[in-house]
Amino acid sequence: MKRIMLTVAYDGTNYHGWQRQPNGETIESVLNRCLSELLQEETEVIGASRTDSGVHALCNVAVFDTNTNIPPDKLAYALNARLPADIKIQGSKEVDTAFHPRHCDSRKTYEYRIYHAEFPMPTERLYAHFSYTHYDVERMKEAARYFVGTHDFKSFCSTDSQAENTVRQMERAEVEKNGNLIVFRVAGRGFLYNMVRIMAGTLMEVGRGNLEPEDVKRILEAKNRSAAGPTAPACGLTLMKYEFLNTNI
Amino acid sequence: MKRIMLTVAYDGTNYHGWQRQPNGETIESVLNRCLSELLQEETEVIGASRTDSGVHALCNVAVFDTNTNIPPDKLAYALNARLPADIKIQGSKEVDTAFHPRHCDSRKTYEYRIYHAEFPMPTERLYAHFSYTHYDVERMKEAARYFVGTHDFKSFCSTDSQAENTVRQMERAEVEKNGNLIVFRVAGRGFLYNMVRIMAGTLMEVGRGNLEPEDVKRILEAKNRSAAGPTAPACGLTLMKYEFLNTNI
Repeated sequence: MKRIMLTVAYDGTNYHGWQRQPNGETIESVLNRCLSELLQEETEVIGASRTDSGVHALCNVAVFDTNTNIPPDKLAYALNARLPADIKIQGSKEVDTAFHPRHCDSRKTYEYRIYHAEFPMPTERLYAHFSYTHYDVERMKEAARYFVGTHDFKSFCSTDSQAENTVRQMERAEVEKNGNLIVFRVAGRGFLYNMVRIMAGTLMEVGRGNLEPEDVKRILEAKNRSAAGPTAPACGLTLMKYEFLNTNI
Repeated sequence: MKRIMLTVAYDGTNYHGWQRQPNGETIESVLNRCLSELLQEETEVIGASRTDSGVHALCNVAVFDTNTNIPPDKLAYALNARLPADIKIQGSKEVDTAFHPRHCDSRKTYEYRIYHAEFPMPTERLYAHFSYTHYDVERMKEAARYFVGTHDFKSFCSTDSQAENTVRQMERAEVEKNGNLIVFRVAGRGFLYNMVRIMAGTLMEVGRGNLEPEDVKRILEAKNRSAAGPTAPACGLTLMKYEFLNTNI
């Protein structure tokens, strides 16, 4: 028995998120089905980041155990031949059988993209949230700086979350404008449920003038979800990078 | 009766091209249906560029005549409310009733995008042609230069075309690499049927080493479709810009 690690990219538009659910297709359920068919073994993946419905990823990570004779690095090709066009493996390799992607130090980088224009652009609709409102990007940049560091992010956590410890460390949080796209990029050692989308929704309120940049500090201190802005729509969010720290992976 | 000009953006993935066809939904047929419903008049648009099945556009142009009282600049909003998410108007205004978008000087800019990587990336699949082959981008840059200027592009025209005059003027033809994307950008005063896709297919042959950059000169001189490379897949092509020249439009 060996453990294989997959790097998984997907367009989340047509899925009910990562995690297997009673109703609706998920990334995990498609992977399990295609792997089980390919390997002729009942296969269940363990995912690193259980992204929400409609969220995209360039590099999520999953591991599974198998007795297959297919060389580990060839599994990516064999699996891609069975996967739909909106889920594709970016690499496969053998890892230590004790490796669990959620039980080790990691750094995740997310991007939240806003397409700002007078009219929606069809070719941007799937991977950016459209908004015709004017945003003051300089204010958003200033506000994002308050996220950097170690803080209690309870105000930026969905009330549906069961997390007991809501302290998280953000290594990077910045906003940039590229043509019609406003991109919020954040990197940290773990995130709470809906955290990036609530951060993005709050930055949008700052950009619109409904909040001041320094209000982010006040919102963090409030430790209350209702102090922050709304949860921004899922389509704008993409998991860009997943790094495992203090390991050879 | 007044003539209205629409700037039309679309994701061509799910359409059989611009032009109305007996079978299959087209951009034109969706526009005609939504306009007729909105205006309560039988409405038929005249398109500027009749893009192929699967090709995208950020800024195609269409005109139509109407008696509506809706202010010309508000038509974009009213029409967008009825259009699907993959077709959206980017602007509307009144033009001279004699204005015909195919009977006036114009400059069109196209991009052909190749996503080059070991594995396909789901979030790039709709707007770039995936290829795992190695491309020598410097050779492609060199080859693209031969397109610039006024040439007989018969070799780069589909044999299905009825065009009698195959001389066209290219003002710009360049290749650049942005991460995993190789982008061929070409601007000219009119293009032949499948021309950009045959140019892109030929540049890909140069990039792979199957043709030399200077072979483009020989292919132009051959004036024979079979001398050029294959027609690159439609999904990689996007009409980026449409400029009307010698007019106030």
